[in-house]
Amino acid sequence: MGPIDRRERERLALRARIMKKARRLFAEKGYEAVTMRQIAEAIEYSPRTIYLHFKDKEDLFWELCSEDFRSFGEGMAQVLAIADPVARLRQLGSAYAQFAMSHQHHYRLMFMTRHPEPVGPQDPCKGNPEADAYALLVVTTREALEQGRFRPGLEDPELLAQIVWACLHGVISLELTHGQEAYIPWRPFQARVEAALGMVLHGLLRESETESIPPSKPKRSRP
Amino acid sequence: MGPIDRRERERLALRARIMKKARRLFAEKGYEAVTMRQIAEAIEYSPRTIYLHFKDKEDLFWELCSEDFRSFGEGMAQVLAIADPVARLRQLGSAYAQFAMSHQHHYRLMFMTRHPEPVGPQDPCKGNPEADAYALLVVTTREALEQGRFRPGLEDPELLAQIVWACLHGVISLELTHGQEAYIPWRPFQARVEAALGMVLHGLLRESETESIPPSKPKRSRP
Repeated sequence: MGPIDRRERERLALRARIMKKARRLFAEKGYEAVTMRQIAEAIEYSPRTIYLHFKDKEDLFWELCSEDFRSFGEGMAQVLAIADPVARLRQLGSAYAQFAMSHQHHYRLMFMTRHPEPVGPQDPCKGNPEADAYALLVVTTREALEQGRFRPGLEDPELLAQIVWACLHGVISLELTHGQEAYIPWRPFQARVEAALGMVLHGLLRESETESIPPSKPKRSRP
Repeated sequence: MGPIDRRERERLALRARIMKKARRLFAEKGYEAVTMRQIAEAIEYSPRTIYLHFKDKEDLFWELCSEDFRSFGEGMAQVLAIADPVARLRQLGSAYAQFAMSHQHHYRLMFMTRHPEPVGPQDPCKGNPEADAYALLVVTTREALEQGRFRPGLEDPELLAQIVWACLHGVISLELTHGQEAYIPWRPFQARVEAALGMVLHGLLRESETESIPPSKPKRSRP
């Protein structure tokens, strides 16, 4: 390998380092509170170096956002292998919670941080993998509705997707924000995820369906 | 009224102004990112003035926290007038969502901001009104369990309280963080709250009880 390969490798490695540090800072402090100078200081480079890789803070943020939603969307899309929409819904919920715990900085940046005003039609998140993971959820609630699996009165797949997402997001975000505080006798995170999924499925399915609720398959026992 | 009354009134008014501005800054930027100097600048006083009212940033934060959880807890406690635990559970959920929308800075500070490490047994939130509002929720799930209103298999009132809370918190926090973003076709906030409460109640109640689910009473139509 010649020196050009080496330089390109070094350039990509530095770019990845900048992004990793920036993700952490944005996740911990919020987008507004972080400056390019702080990111540079954190990786011990000059701000000038960062500007060789990213036009400005917004550019850096959207690159991160784009990368994170893409890998998240790809991970979630694996549940498409599950044909039954009810079983798929449960697996989507479990996979989402597992992603959040194994990618806490990603999760904070993606779902717990206000994003800067999108730049109109160029908004790189629009129609991108978050929309895809969301679209995957809507496809799943729509399929369950069409198969008559949900109780009478439920009919809007978007509304149902939004409350299922919210329920899981609530368990995850309370854990990430307040899980360390001792004044709530928190039950183990995995128990809360399973109980929430049980409540969601019993809450949506028609009575004759509730016996078919797939058994929980805890993936990890995080206390 | 003499000058001492006037001075005391002015002192309290300034203290309230400091707290209001600090709540907003903490809610927007997070506890870590805010300095006493920034709070002082925002109200156009010297940092010295703030230190006449609060020992340090942590003291100011816990005073805010204490005040907010107290008034929140008092508001929530009004649902104790409802004897039926299932109707009370629904009303608690509605009241919680309504509080969040009418007190967005309070809500962000209380439930969406990581709090500084509590100072051990002096932690002013411990056993305080948040624990009280939480305790109120646990009392309600326990009562419903004892009355045999929930489906078989549900038995831990703390776990149930934690997932009911999480579900509402999820609807609220997604709204506060991402509700302005256009790439999700958000249904109206109030519709999401009602649908989530319906899912929660259908998800917890035994089948013979679901006909008794109290009708929704939307309080406000916020699009």
